[in-house]
Amino acid sequence: MRFALGIEYQGHAYKGWQSQTGLSTVQANIERCLSQIMTEKVDVVCAGRTDAGVHATNQIVHFDTNISRPMNAFTLGMNSNLPGDIAIRWAQQVDDDFHARFSATARRYRYIIFNNPFRPGILSTGLTHVYKTLNAEPMHEAAQVLVGENDFTSFRAAHCQSNSPCRNLTSISVERRGQYIVVEVEANAFLHHMVRNIVGSLIEVGAGEQSVTWFNRLLALKDRTKAAATAKPNGLYLVKVTYPEKFNIPTPPLGPLFLGA
Amino acid sequence: MRFALGIEYQGHAYKGWQSQTGLSTVQANIERCLSQIMTEKVDVVCAGRTDAGVHATNQIVHFDTNISRPMNAFTLGMNSNLPGDIAIRWAQQVDDDFHARFSATARRYRYIIFNNPFRPGILSTGLTHVYKTLNAEPMHEAAQVLVGENDFTSFRAAHCQSNSPCRNLTSISVERRGQYIVVEVEANAFLHHMVRNIVGSLIEVGAGEQSVTWFNRLLALKDRTKAAATAKPNGLYLVKVTYPEKFNIPTPPLGPLFLGA
Repeated sequence: MRFALGIEYQGHAYKGWQSQTGLSTVQANIERCLSQIMTEKVDVVCAGRTDAGVHATNQIVHFDTNISRPMNAFTLGMNSNLPGDIAIRWAQQVDDDFHARFSATARRYRYIIFNNPFRPGILSTGLTHVYKTLNAEPMHEAAQVLVGENDFTSFRAAHCQSNSPCRNLTSISVERRGQYIVVEVEANAFLHHMVRNIVGSLIEVGAGEQSVTWFNRLLALKDRTKAAATAKPNGLYLVKVTYPEKFNIPTPPLGPLFLGA
Repeated sequence: MRFALGIEYQGHAYKGWQSQTGLSTVQANIERCLSQIMTEKVDVVCAGRTDAGVHATNQIVHFDTNISRPMNAFTLGMNSNLPGDIAIRWAQQVDDDFHARFSATARRYRYIIFNNPFRPGILSTGLTHVYKTLNAEPMHEAAQVLVGENDFTSFRAAHCQSNSPCRNLTSISVERRGQYIVVEVEANAFLHHMVRNIVGSLIEVGAGEQSVTWFNRLLALKDRTKAAATAKPNGLYLVKVTYPEKFNIPTPPLGPLFLGA
C-alpha cells in the first residue's frame, strides 16, 4: 500500500529537508516518527527537497508499507511525537503509481519580505527583513520576463546539480500586502537557489537600485555573477505541489497561516 | 538624562523578561547590548515583566545615563547586536519623571489562539493551538463580567505576590479572525497569570463545555481551584502600555505583525 502525507514545517532549526548523517533534518524527523508508528523502518520520498532554513506549508511525501493503520495515526499520532515546528496536515492512501516527486507537474513557492525600517523581533526566522522601501510594481513588471520555458543560468546556484538550466516557469507575481511584499512563483520544477536568486535581484529592482530592463537583461546574459546576492532562506515557503487530478491529492490553503489565505 | 525604548520580542527562547543569574532572559540581553553601546553598565526598568515564553510587541523600558548617543545607536545599533528574536522599535529621550512602570496607566495584552483540528508547524511558539472548535460569541459575552474594578482571585496564580487581588479591567473582547480567536484585554495592571487564567476558562466556554453563567459565577467564587487550567504562554503578547499624553510615548500598531493591524 502507498500512502501520502501533507506536511507543514518551519525550517529554521533544520539542515534542510534531506536526511544527512548526524544532522537534524525534516526528513529524518518524519521518518523517525513514522517508523515508530509503523514498527518498521519507513523511508519517505518528497516532492521538493527544501534547503536549510526554508519552510513548507504543503510539502508532500509518499511511502510504502504493508501494515494497516488508521489515518489519524499519521496525523494526530505523528503530531504528538514530532517537534513543534513540524506538523502533518493530512494523510491518505494513494494509488500505487502515485509518486510524490515524479508525479508532480508543478511546484509553487511564496517568498515573504517584511519591508520595514526596523527588523522584526517576532517571526524573524519566518520572514526576510528588507529595511529599504520596496516598490512592488516594478518588481512584478520585471519578473514577467521569466514566464515561459527559459534558461535560468543567471539564477542558478554554482553547485546546482541539474543537467539542464532550463525550467518552465508558469507564473510569477509580486504584490504588497501591508508591510509584506509577497513573491509567488510557480514552475514545473526549480533549479537550486532559483527562487532566492530571483528574489535577490527583484529586491534591487524594488529598491530602485536596478531597472526593469536590467532584470530583463539578466535572464538573457545567462551569467550568475551579474545577478544580485541570494536572498535569505527565512522568507521562503513551499506552498503547493500540483498533481494530476486523478490522484485526488488534498489542496489546503497555501498559507503560511500568518498571511491569511 | 532618561531614555525610553520600545521593544518587540518573541519570548519562546527566554526564561521571561526579568534578569536571573545564569538564565537567558530578555532583560539580560537588552542590558548587555545597551551596556556595550554606552560603555558603562546600564540597568533598565520595564513596564510589564512578562513570563517565560510570553511575547511583546510594545514592551517599554527606561534607563538613565549621562552619555550622549545618537538615537539610532539604540535602534539600528542595538538591533545589529541583539538576538534575532528581540528588536528595538524606537528610542527617544523622555522627561526625568517618566517611569516605564509607575507612569503606566494601563497595559493591553492580546492572546492568539490558532483554532484548527491540527496543530500548526509554522509559528507554533507564537500561537496557542486549540483543536476543538471555539465559538467566539459566548466567550466574548462571558468575558464582559470581568469589566470594572474586581477581585480576580479566581484567575490569580497561587504564587502571585501582589498585596491585592483587585484590578481595574477596562475592556476585554473576543473575536474570530479566520482561523484565529483573538482575546484582547486591558487593565490598569494584571495579577500573575491573570490573562492566561482568564483565557483558559474562556476556552472552555468557547468549546461549549461550560456556560456563560458558569464563567460569571467563577469571578464571584474567588476560588482559583474552580477555574480551568492556565492557558499556554505561546499565544500571549503584551501589545500596548498606556502613559499620560504629556510623556509623548510612541504608539506603533499593536500587532503582532502577522495579525495585520
